[in-house]
Amino acid sequence: LAPATKSYPVIKIKGGKRSDERDTVVNEGQLTIFLNGQKVVTLSCTPKEEKYLALGYLLSEGIVKDRGEIKRVVSYPEREEVRVFTKREVKLSGDFLQTAVLTSGCGKGKSFKSLEKINPLEDILLNFDFSLTPSEILSLMRKFDSKSTLFKRTAGVHGAALADREKILLFAEDIGRHNAVDKVLGKALMKRIILKDKLILSSGRISSDLLVKVWRAGLSLICSRSAPTGKALDLAKNLGVTVVGFVRGRRMNVYTYPARIATSE
Amino acid sequence: LAPATKSYPVIKIKGGKRSDERDTVVNEGQLTIFLNGQKVVTLSCTPKEEKYLALGYLLSEGIVKDRGEIKRVVSYPEREEVRVFTKREVKLSGDFLQTAVLTSGCGKGKSFKSLEKINPLEDILLNFDFSLTPSEILSLMRKFDSKSTLFKRTAGVHGAALADREKILLFAEDIGRHNAVDKVLGKALMKRIILKDKLILSSGRISSDLLVKVWRAGLSLICSRSAPTGKALDLAKNLGVTVVGFVRGRRMNVYTYPARIATSE
Repeated sequence: LAPATKSYPVIKIKGGKRSDERDTVVNEGQLTIFLNGQKVVTLSCTPKEEKYLALGYLLSEGIVKDRGEIKRVVSYPEREEVRVFTKREVKLSGDFLQTAVLTSGCGKGKSFKSLEKINPLEDILLNFDFSLTPSEILSLMRKFDSKSTLFKRTAGVHGAALADREKILLFAEDIGRHNAVDKVLGKALMKRIILKDKLILSSGRISSDLLVKVWRAGLSLICSRSAPTGKALDLAKNLGVTVVGFVRGRRMNVYTYPARIATSE
Repeated sequence: LAPATKSYPVIKIKGGKRSDERDTVVNEGQLTIFLNGQKVVTLSCTPKEEKYLALGYLLSEGIVKDRGEIKRVVSYPEREEVRVFTKREVKLSGDFLQTAVLTSGCGKGKSFKSLEKINPLEDILLNFDFSLTPSEILSLMRKFDSKSTLFKRTAGVHGAALADREKILLFAEDIGRHNAVDKVLGKALMKRIILKDKLILSSGRISSDLLVKVWRAGLSLICSRSAPTGKALDLAKNLGVTVVGFVRGRRMNVYTYPARIATSE
């Protein structure tokens, strides 16, 4: 498995000043858990303590109940697999047999292997006509915060918004950060809003699946109050997406394609 | 679909004082998306704007690409279904056909219908021998914070811990809040730690699937720095689990089975 963190170049913007630095971002690994040779699930996870993750998953999903049932646990880091063997046969319910690879959701993995091979300068047309300034991003994030009414009442949801340079066009909240983004994208689809000159704002972590959702919808700029993962940044580089993280107060971190963040203010 | 929020009785503890209040918590709904009569996915979501969620999901997962493809979108709130019809046939990839119901993960739904029928006083033996004081919980949460080193470096992970009344026994961090809990539970399983007189600490939201994971492993007390969902609280009541949320600074909210939070300090 990959290391748990990764060092990434970043342009830190703070109160109008820019500095080239390096940032430690958390990595996303893929782990496939097998039980007695049968695939149970593929998880998107932090690549660390993968044997415990496999055992805990089997326990908390009700597949294994007791330490005494376990015969052997073997990790194959290069293949990103943990294979658990029990003393007796364990019957998996239909749920697990149907879901060989679980898609999306925080902690449920997708591999995006085909997307990793895309070379942005050759395969996709990068849209650099759309850019905005750090002040515009900070102003949009303040508007975003003022719209987060369900969050203010419950502290239990994520928000997502579609915006142009000046204003929030669409906004949604949901217990799932992917759902909030999907609600905004669905509304944009219904309203036939052109997406390529817009940006997505999110309150949540930018993981690889969220990044790919935004890119698939035709957007090339995502700004979040939270952190990106290393895998999301790798994909963003390949797909030509600008990722801005930690948009808080007067600061932000630009991780990829800073050409879309205008320098002249 | 259920309303987006729910009012719940709560005991708020702040600096040693207790008060009976009501709290607004976010609800979890289940939404199944059909495309041309075929089931695509079941999402755990905030029950609101479900048509947009369905459309956005189909767009961001690359199943639908353009508004012009959509013929009709019908919502059936009582059945928690949205049915999308396209003008032409759309081929679903193997991924979606295999995964009729996606398990767990934030935003991917499980129904737990059978668990909703459990009556704690009849069907399960409630363990009320184990209790701890608010001061002990606050002290454990401070120790939890000091162990969150990966979070301090990346701000991109969740933490989970197994604790007894005095100390953190096991700790793990992961990009997925479920994974962090699973890592701790897996470690406890390997070390043959008795779980029924322990508690789980988490940095993340207590959703229904997280609650059920903790209960399945044999624990009856979970404390989090974040919010619980309404569905998690309903299940906690049925399953006999004490849920404490918003453990921050000197305060916390006790939502269910306050008998496990000792009054005499």
